[in-house]
Formats: sequence, C-alpha cells, structure tokens
Amino acid sequence: MVASIVVLCGGVGAARFLEGVVRAVDPATVTAIVNVADDAEFHGLHVSPDIDTVLYTLAGVVDPVHGWGVRDDTHVVQDALARLGRDIWFQLGDRDLATHLHRTALLREGVPLSEITARIARSLGVRVHVAPSSDERQATMVRTDDGWLAFQDYFVRRRQRDTVREVRFDGAATAARGVLEAIADASVVLVAPSNPIVSIGPILAVKGVRDALSRTRAPIVAVSPIIGGEALKGPAAAMLASLGHEVSPVGVARLYSDFLDVMVIDERDAALVAQVESSGARAVVAPTIMIDLAAKERLARIALDAAGAPARA
Amino acid sequence: MVASIVVLCGGVGAARFLEGVVRAVDPATVTAIVNVADDAEFHGLHVSPDIDTVLYTLAGVVDPVHGWGVRDDTHVVQDALARLGRDIWFQLGDRDLATHLHRTALLREGVPLSEITARIARSLGVRVHVAPSSDERQATMVRTDDGWLAFQDYFVRRRQRDTVREVRFDGAATAARGVLEAIADASVVLVAPSNPIVSIGPILAVKGVRDALSRTRAPIVAVSPIIGGEALKGPAAAMLASLGHEVSPVGVARLYSDFLDVMVIDERDAALVAQVESSGARAVVAPTIMIDLAAKERLARIALDAAGAPARA
Repeated sequence: MVASIVVLCGGVGAARFLEGVVRAVDPATVTAIVNVADDAEFHGLHVSPDIDTVLYTLAGVVDPVHGWGVRDDTHVVQDALARLGRDIWFQLGDRDLATHLHRTALLREGVPLSEITARIARSLGVRVHVAPSSDERQATMVRTDDGWLAFQDYFVRRRQRDTVREVRFDGAATAARGVLEAIADASVVLVAPSNPIVSIGPILAVKGVRDALSRTRAPIVAVSPIIGGEALKGPAAAMLASLGHEVSPVGVARLYSDFLDVMVIDERDAALVAQVESSGARAVVAPTIMIDLAAKERLARIALDAAGAPARA
Repeated sequence: MVASIVVLCGGVGAARFLEGVVRAVDPATVTAIVNVADDAEFHGLHVSPDIDTVLYTLAGVVDPVHGWGVRDDTHVVQDALARLGRDIWFQLGDRDLATHLHRTALLREGVPLSEITARIARSLGVRVHVAPSSDERQATMVRTDDGWLAFQDYFVRRRQRDTVREVRFDGAATAARGVLEAIADASVVLVAPSNPIVSIGPILAVKGVRDALSRTRAPIVAVSPIIGGEALKGPAAAMLASLGHEVSPVGVARLYSDFLDVMVIDERDAALVAQVESSGARAVVAPTIMIDLAAKERLARIALDAAGAPARA
C-alpha cells in the first residue's frame, strides 16, 4: 500500500514544513488539510490566506520575504482601489488578486471551495492534494479588551497588538468531502508547526475531525511551533500565555493530548522531554528551525521517522 | 435660471462629444444619461463599459488609442487569470479592474448603480453628473444567424462580424432617480453621436424616457453618428442596414422622430437636409468629425446654438 501522509496546516509555518515533506515523500501521496477560519472578504473577494500561502509556497511562487503573497507581485489594482477611496489595510498584490477573483467567481457559481482549491492547485502545478478543512464558512473570532474582533482585524489591521482573552470559531463547519476519510486512511498524520490555537484549533473544531484523529490507526506526530518559549513567527506565544496555557511544547502537547502520539521539540527544549511525555505523547528532540530547504527536509524526515513511516531515500 | 444640459450617451462617441460639451458650458450644469444595456459580468465583476468610457474620458485618463479603458494600464491580473484557466476575451486592465471591483462590491452591499457612479465620478474629479439611465438590469440582446447573443458576445467576442437581424432589450428597466426629472427640467437635451440602435436605443427603452423626451419643453438636438453612409466607429451602419433603416442621418432622424427638434448632420450629407426635415426635425449642416479637442468643442457649440442655448464665450 502506498503511504498516505496527512498534514494539518495553518499558513506560513505549515507551508515551509510542507516544502520539506514533499522532498521526503512523493508529493502525490500528501494531503494538506488547511485551516479556512482565517478566510475573509475584501472588496467583495473571498480570500483564503492559509490555502493560498500553502499553494503559492508549494508552487514555488511565494514571496520569500513575507512568506505569503506572490513573489515580485505588483500592486496596481490596490493603488487604484485606494484612489477610489477604499480602505486597503489588507495587502493584495495583482497576481494574488487574480486567485481571489477566480475563487470568488467560482464560489458564486456554486463550486465548493475544495473543488476550486483543487483546480487552482492544478493550474499552479501543485501535486500535493491541498484540501480546505471545510467547504463551509468558519470564522475565527478573538475577544480582546476592545471586544470581539474578526481574525484579520486582529491579525492584520491591528497587527496582533491586542491581548487575546478568548477565541471562538463561528460557523458549525462540517468537514469537506474526503477530509475525515483521509485522516482515517492515513499512514501518518503530521501536525505542522502552526499556531495551535488559531491555525490548528479551527481544523480541530470542524465537526468530526477531532474524533477522526482519535480513531485513526495512523501515528500522529506534531512539530512544536514553540521553541525556547517563543514562536518563530506570529502571536502563538502571547496567545498561549494570555489564554492560560504553558508557553512551551508542553502547553502545545496538552492541547493535542487526546490524539497525539509524538511531539517533535527543538533541541533548546530538550529539558522538557519528561514534561511533554507526561501529557501522553512521546517526545523527539531535533533541530526544528527551518532555516533552509535542507533543514525543512530534515525536519520532515525526523517527523516521518518518529511515526515509523518510510521516506524516500 | 442656470442652463441644465442633458446629454443622452453611449460609449466612445458620446464621451468624445462630452469633452466638447464641457468646454462649451460649465461641466456642473451637464447631466450625461448613459446607456447600461451593454453592462455585463466578467469574472464575477459588474462591468459598465459605457459609464466607464464616459468617466475615464471626462477624467482625462482614458486610453487615447482605444477610446476606452485606462491610459497606460497594465494587465497583470488578466494574465494571471489566464494562467488560472479563465477565458479573458474581454480585456480588463488592472486600473480599470479596480473600478469594476469597487462597483461590484458596492452593488453587493445594495448601493444603487447611480450612487456608485456618482462616487466614482467624485473620486476621479469628474464634475459632470454622470447618471446611468437605470439602476436596474437591462440587457441588449442581438439576434444573428447563429441565434440570440448577449451584446458583449456579439460586440467584443465575435467582433461584430454577425449580421444583426433583430435587437431586443431584456429587463423592464425603470429610470434611475432623477433621470426623468433631468429631462423634464433641462434647458437643452443633446443626443450624442452614438449608435441609435444599441446605445441610444436602450436609453429610449427605459420606462418613461421616451415619454419624458416627448413632453419636455427643452429643445432636443441630435448629432448624427452616420456620415456619408458610414459610422466613424462601430457597427451602427451595418446594423441600420440589416434592420431595414436608411444608413444616413435620415434613417437616424426617423428613429428619433417622436421627440427630435434638430439633427446636426455632416457637411458631406448636406444634400440630405430636405429628407431629414421631412421627418419633422430641422437639419443643421456642420463639420461633425471630432478630430481634436477644438473640433469637439466646435461641434458642441453648434449643437447648443441649434438649440438656442447660450454657451460660455
């Protein structure tokens, strides 16, 4: 039987991890299940930030500076929108905007997001099966001292400066076709080093996903996004802290304790092995910072090895 | 009382005529009532070709080669849409696309097209009151030997190569707020040298417009789009012929005979004065080819003079 690798994904961190995975195994055997709770509408266009980051990265066209958006993109439309008096706090390059236009037009025709994503992946030459966790609308909301904010308001417009007091996911999203089956039939499930609260959290909140993870016979291996008490990117550390979780692989392992088999933690956190293992998962210590393509591939191989899954030589 | 000039407008020909009108009178006294039956959706965006041609021309940003679209526009989005597999036979530059995005987003919020057009005009610094004939959907359909076609299919995709056997306007559009009042209260009504069938025709088909033109006390002056048996641009001549109309100012005057007071015809058609006048309108012979700004202004002044309306010195 061909190994089938499922990877639970947020945005930039997951995309970089996937770059390693597709060097360790045949990309056609990989299903990336991607968070959609960051999706939002700008100028009437449906934007799926995490899906696009994964697609652009795997297609090799991602902007290497930001980790999202298209490399060398222009901003002619956005500048013209500003002149028309529109608020353009959410950056949209021209090439990127074409993706949103295409997606939005197809959604309005009634094509499900999963099918649209598959078509865009094909156009971009991406061989990984990139699957939105749900075809339905799910929206991350964060409560701050100024009240509840939509995720992109918190994340982009207000630059994550608010302390997050509570997180909820609006919309009782059901899993997109094939998602629960992919988890059930997987050889390995990997949880990318994404924000456990607002990237992996919404995937786990999709109906049936958490249960499918508990039931699958596949080993489940997570890579900790927290290294030495900090997140390499984004507000994961601050969010864990303000929500009362330990800001370490231990805190992350506890959030996944009902399904996790192995947690890959960074060498800097080697002292935490016993604590991680007290949550029920085995801990594997490795260099986890993905500084270059070789490091990404090495990390992917370590995660696959930890699951006992064969990678390509 | 301040003179108020109403101009019935199609696209490129009308926009060029308006450039002359705003040099002859205060732009703030001019209301351009513009055809919306060419409007269409591309990639989920609502495109209003005639309105945009009028706006871009009056704003001084129109592409001088085509007479539509934005000068020096780029096509990054369109190229990316093509790579995503979309059919891009309808050209959309990036700056132009921002207008459609803005308009579509506002339409989906429930803002009427007339209000949206006023806002875009303001953003572009256009002082003429540019008014869609209707806030409702009206769609020109042309019957060809291949059956009925949507207007842009006939006009752009198939490059007007089909013989037009019949024209109809779908949608029982009512006049946008202020349109009938503008005609009733006008000092002068000018009919721009636009296609009488598919540019002026749909405006006349909007409920109440033809009646308002018959009732207004304002003199109504049309400029013939047909010169020496030909249209300077577009399929007006072929369309008049295939629909059984005379391909001359006489044929045009007859289409407007229930409301027209004066028809401005080109010097080359001087021999047709008596025939034009047999339709009931007075004929004024003048050079009507708008080769430059001076010619546009001269033509506007001739039309206004013919109506007995005072232009600025």
